[in-house]
Amino acid sequence: MGVKFYLGIDLGGTNIKAGVVDEHAKIRSKVNLPTGAVGGPDEVLSRMCRAGDQAIKEAGLKTEDIRVIGVGAPGNLSHKKGIIIAPPNLPGWRNVPVRDRISAYFKRPATLENDANAAAWGEYWAGAGKGKHSLVMFTLGTGIGGGIVYDGRFLRGFYDTAAELGHIIVEPNGRQCACGQRGCVEAYASAMNAANIAMEELRAGRPSSMKAVLDEKGSITTETILNHMLNGDDYARDIWDRTCRYLAIACVALNHTINSEIIVLAGGMVNAGDHLLTPVRKYYWDLQGPVFGDASPQIVLAQLGSDAGLVGAAGAAKLNEERNDL
Amino acid sequence: MGVKFYLGIDLGGTNIKAGVVDEHAKIRSKVNLPTGAVGGPDEVLSRMCRAGDQAIKEAGLKTEDIRVIGVGAPGNLSHKKGIIIAPPNLPGWRNVPVRDRISAYFKRPATLENDANAAAWGEYWAGAGKGKHSLVMFTLGTGIGGGIVYDGRFLRGFYDTAAELGHIIVEPNGRQCACGQRGCVEAYASAMNAANIAMEELRAGRPSSMKAVLDEKGSITTETILNHMLNGDDYARDIWDRTCRYLAIACVALNHTINSEIIVLAGGMVNAGDHLLTPVRKYYWDLQGPVFGDASPQIVLAQLGSDAGLVGAAGAAKLNEERNDL
Repeated sequence: MGVKFYLGIDLGGTNIKAGVVDEHAKIRSKVNLPTGAVGGPDEVLSRMCRAGDQAIKEAGLKTEDIRVIGVGAPGNLSHKKGIIIAPPNLPGWRNVPVRDRISAYFKRPATLENDANAAAWGEYWAGAGKGKHSLVMFTLGTGIGGGIVYDGRFLRGFYDTAAELGHIIVEPNGRQCACGQRGCVEAYASAMNAANIAMEELRAGRPSSMKAVLDEKGSITTETILNHMLNGDDYARDIWDRTCRYLAIACVALNHTINSEIIVLAGGMVNAGDHLLTPVRKYYWDLQGPVFGDASPQIVLAQLGSDAGLVGAAGAAKLNEERNDL
Repeated sequence: MGVKFYLGIDLGGTNIKAGVVDEHAKIRSKVNLPTGAVGGPDEVLSRMCRAGDQAIKEAGLKTEDIRVIGVGAPGNLSHKKGIIIAPPNLPGWRNVPVRDRISAYFKRPATLENDANAAAWGEYWAGAGKGKHSLVMFTLGTGIGGGIVYDGRFLRGFYDTAAELGHIIVEPNGRQCACGQRGCVEAYASAMNAANIAMEELRAGRPSSMKAVLDEKGSITTETILNHMLNGDDYARDIWDRTCRYLAIACVALNHTINSEIIVLAGGMVNAGDHLLTPVRKYYWDLQGPVFGDASPQIVLAQLGSDAGLVGAAGAAKLNEERNDL
């Protein structure tokens, strides 16, 4: 019997990534297409199919060579029913039966997972979590996504909405979050919100070398914060530290719930490397009670970068096939 | 083949409860002995054995009729190794091989679980969680304990310290907790700490009908708070509401991590019944983002009272035998 191949499709609000991944987690092809979300579900689904076709062709394979297709997609969604319910960044979608549509087009079995879970599975299968018992992953981007893999399985939750880790409340009566809650870790420590807080405080008069950038460009990013911190700006260091500390509070909550072997930080902010990891770890150990000793997850950086979703979607296809849970 | 019997032993800092429970979760006997913790591990272990012997006798059985013995004990402990490591309320214990000592005495297989996990399993097997997919349990006593059962299994964590739910941080830079952290939900919403906060604020001059009780008795309890609230005292209502709101913040964190089918409130404070449940639910729904809809655990009260630990220890014996995980 030859090597088994899986097709992963990572559906994002801006781009569709598709690729063939073999059973050893090796990427055999990779295709990127714009999502074209304004065209609505039918248009997006046809682009997903086109991206998949191209990925299969580029891998030198035929559709029949693919065992199962894994789709990672923004929530909320139902893995069991294979439908995308009503995701905020795919306007006009409501109860779209993505799994069955994809399966019907390719005439292969398909499976649907939340994109953050898929990315977590990618790191578990082939990245920072390889060989580990369990991991919790925070994806630090515009928002904060989350995924949990425990003892070789997804922890999806009874209602399919586990691991919405960005919405752990870290500051009661705190900042308004896009989800409707107040004081979510996402409202403080996502890349977008960390930059938003900095811009508010700069406009309110906090002295900083970043003020000139804000005045000139009209906005700053976490990259600006990082660069100015490294150039010795005190306020940039202050806002970066506060961001890392809020992340650490959420990590403490995850230790005291899941107690996974590792906690993985992923997403654009991970480009900061040790400048992110070192203070998050420091605050984590400062915050955490000594009574818990060292029986705590190690906090590490993701390793697969933007391939995690694609690899994880294909890996979920393999896992769910094996577990009879497509 | 006849009915299968299990012996549950629930080791507490003050009392040892032992009982025979059959495979249908029916309690066949129940024995209570003082722990005698000052005597150290050997004394306590011999009392656990005595309590077990009595429970077997009272059930009209012989030791050979018991399939497996389940011990629920205060953490920290290692299920895998079967040892109690260094529990705060059993002074002088360090790496005591409880599972093997109990097994050797009774000449039956034994298994060791964290007491809060055992109680959660009791409710899952035979109480509020019967027939459910998953549950998270908060035990509201002197401290706040926690247990998680997910899809028919314990979620013990990689380091055996999952579900320390009292130590989720709900108030950054908040009150000092006994664990060494600041701002834990336990520091605000355990029965002891809610009463402590009330006493501090009464002494600081908050007007309340409870002040007279405090002056007379030197202390108050959550029962005092509840009674005075029901008699119309505004401050008692305020402190009770704040307690319930902190619990709700922790429940939101649990929804966004585990997303279990239900959240169970247990422990002494549950005697307040709907006076506890109604405000916790109210704050939970007030706090939680509408974007998450109703895909959320229902919050319910525990049903087994002080039998949960005993039933759960016996149930864990059954479960772990079946899963080959003693």
